[in-house]
Amino acid sequence: MKGEKKRSPLFIQGVLLDEQKVDILIEDSRIAGIDAKLEMPASALLIDGRGKAVFPTFVNMHTHAAMTLFRGFGDDHPLQEWLQEWIWPNEKNLTEEIIYWGTRLACLEMIKSGTTAFADMYFHLPAAAKAVEESGIRALLGYTVFDFGDPATAAKVKDEVAEWHCRISKETGSGRVCYGLAPHAPYTVSDKTLSWLADYAAENGLKYHIHMSETESEVENSIAQHGKRPYEHLHDLGILQKTGDRFIGAHSLHLTEEEAEMVGRNRCNVVHNPNSNLKLGSGFKFLYQELSQAGCNVSLGTDGCSSSNNLDMLEATKTMALLQKGWRGDPTTMPAREALEVASRNGYRALGLDGGQLRAGALADLMLVDINNVAFLPHNDNTLSNLIYAAHSDAIDTVICNGRIVMEGRRVADEDEIMKNADKMVGELIKHRP
Amino acid sequence: MKGEKKRSPLFIQGVLLDEQKVDILIEDSRIAGIDAKLEMPASALLIDGRGKAVFPTFVNMHTHAAMTLFRGFGDDHPLQEWLQEWIWPNEKNLTEEIIYWGTRLACLEMIKSGTTAFADMYFHLPAAAKAVEESGIRALLGYTVFDFGDPATAAKVKDEVAEWHCRISKETGSGRVCYGLAPHAPYTVSDKTLSWLADYAAENGLKYHIHMSETESEVENSIAQHGKRPYEHLHDLGILQKTGDRFIGAHSLHLTEEEAEMVGRNRCNVVHNPNSNLKLGSGFKFLYQELSQAGCNVSLGTDGCSSSNNLDMLEATKTMALLQKGWRGDPTTMPAREALEVASRNGYRALGLDGGQLRAGALADLMLVDINNVAFLPHNDNTLSNLIYAAHSDAIDTVICNGRIVMEGRRVADEDEIMKNADKMVGELIKHRP
Repeated sequence: MKGEKKRSPLFIQGVLLDEQKVDILIEDSRIAGIDAKLEMPASALLIDGRGKAVFPTFVNMHTHAAMTLFRGFGDDHPLQEWLQEWIWPNEKNLTEEIIYWGTRLACLEMIKSGTTAFADMYFHLPAAAKAVEESGIRALLGYTVFDFGDPATAAKVKDEVAEWHCRISKETGSGRVCYGLAPHAPYTVSDKTLSWLADYAAENGLKYHIHMSETESEVENSIAQHGKRPYEHLHDLGILQKTGDRFIGAHSLHLTEEEAEMVGRNRCNVVHNPNSNLKLGSGFKFLYQELSQAGCNVSLGTDGCSSSNNLDMLEATKTMALLQKGWRGDPTTMPAREALEVASRNGYRALGLDGGQLRAGALADLMLVDINNVAFLPHNDNTLSNLIYAAHSDAIDTVICNGRIVMEGRRVADEDEIMKNADKMVGELIKHRP
Repeated sequence: MKGEKKRSPLFIQGVLLDEQKVDILIEDSRIAGIDAKLEMPASALLIDGRGKAVFPTFVNMHTHAAMTLFRGFGDDHPLQEWLQEWIWPNEKNLTEEIIYWGTRLACLEMIKSGTTAFADMYFHLPAAAKAVEESGIRALLGYTVFDFGDPATAAKVKDEVAEWHCRISKETGSGRVCYGLAPHAPYTVSDKTLSWLADYAAENGLKYHIHMSETESEVENSIAQHGKRPYEHLHDLGILQKTGDRFIGAHSLHLTEEEAEMVGRNRCNVVHNPNSNLKLGSGFKFLYQELSQAGCNVSLGTDGCSSSNNLDMLEATKTMALLQKGWRGDPTTMPAREALEVASRNGYRALGLDGGQLRAGALADLMLVDINNVAFLPHNDNTLSNLIYAAHSDAIDTVICNGRIVMEGRRVADEDEIMKNADKMVGELIKHRP
């Protein structure tokens, strides 16, 4: 049986929602009511909403959580040099313990910046699952597959996919952690394995999270090898059609309008990672409008901390909105409300969850923001604009996930212990410096 | 006589500088010593540097401080509609009191994000000067000139420039506030007035702060009207040559490589405003490398809060570094150290001040950053990278300007009063809503 223990209802009194004061009642994991004036149940825990505004929380739809331990390690270097000389030699040192504390640190940072769910792609899934469970937030944990076209590796993958699937299903109890498949990319996984995984995903109702068209050279290589661009290739393999709205295409930066149309027609999910794309020099002309109009659900991610340095979705939301305006030369494109929708509601939609909405019945994943933070001054009914364009995560005071408080007054339980232990792991992980 | 009263030396003990622990002694307005171990004078005030790293503070080289009161007002609208329907009708309501509290709020926000000097361009200069003086930071206050080619207005400008020059010189006592000229732009000020101001600036040793080539249409209009691009036009008027390193060209976004070379040859200063340029859809291909290599001093600004929504230079520094990597497709361009140099040292250089450097003899403008903030975890000798790429301003714990503490433990004196009074001013300022 999945689900968390019963607990007292939460009652948020007098908080600002769309510039109006409301009360919010949370029962179990869901919002039970939102109104100008609600009756507070005697058993409820009172949260004072004065001086605060409420917003739905963010979903970080593409990251590698435990790589937070690599933050800033070897940055400002060319991509291949950074991977081959800095990251890969040290990833050999990964252990369950390193993954556990790296993921705890990542969850801590995400909670502190208003994120309550994320889609991960990394290693040692049971350790990551334990860390997410204990952090109180949600995750889709993708089992990362590479076979580099090697048949022996491909055979091993099949056993592992099933084994980890079984272990993650057993080892999580809250219903907040979910197992998925994560073939690394079309250029590191053989067509056979990509197709087998798509069938497995379809049969088992699993998400299919994959890096797509992140760099121009990867697209050029696909054309050289298959005569087709990466999305065209996956379409011809039948993968987009089989996985449909379970498909999660990270990056998806170098697309033609025809590819965008194809992705939308198959109701696939695409994840924009603006900060990572900029920092690695991959590009910036993400086809948000074209993908959305084609019917694609576009969500947002930070990527791992070793490529984009933090897991702050509020920052990523601003970067996304500004980049769209900037490269299109249009200040009216992607207004604040739409940017928040992409960063929150669309992420929940991609995960198949009804969060990211402040209405009775939706999942109680929300945050209270301190409007006496200087970024919200002066008060002029611009609270949403101030959140997206002016504020930083330090204005986020309280975070609630699944009806439980995971941060209050900017304090997260165990944060000192998490930071201390994560800090210790660096010595275990990073033994090689170029 | 300019200068602030004598006060106790400051002694910062055991703070991290370039990954090494040092002591820093500050006497009067300058750094007196930095070494692994210094003797603490008996009269000194001790600042505990443990768990902190020291960095030079930022210079916001282009802003309109009191416009902080317009934060988020009418954003996501096209530029001309926003100016004509939202901003200009309300700017008629500006008073000395509004400017004073608007500038106090701006200074508060800047201090909280590690900025200790700024170049401003707005109205009611004595009120702004008083606000800066009381805030404890530095400013170049530009007297904003428009004449729209009208001879009567141009005649009035000459008297006003001299009058305000005299008043600002008299009304500031600390040496931290400095008067400058700020012709709005080549398209709003006649050639005669632009030239007269350049002569006045040269004769009086004043800075010449002007909006240059912010939008593509402004460049097209210049070509249509003068047969030349804006910088070429100012060069042909002799203005770049006369003002030289006193010239401060804000934005300077739409330049040819030939213009960049011309600007560099004349040792002019140029200010990049990446967030504002993106948000207003003005563009992003700022020629940082070309300008620097041509000999131009490139610094950084946020622009006013009504176009870029906050005054956070740490955020602007990251945006600048990421945008350069992104649009050039090169992750190695503008590494963290160079980005900090642009945002700090180059700003001080533009103002003619020897700040932005941590060395004995330099101005004591510096900040202490909390390396136990989650963005600095894990500790892996990446402190500078963590500051620029991962952290937000909430990690800035202490700010010192001119040898005085202006923020400690993230508290600024009078911050509650400033926020309360600035908030009240909105009703006085914004009376018209489209």
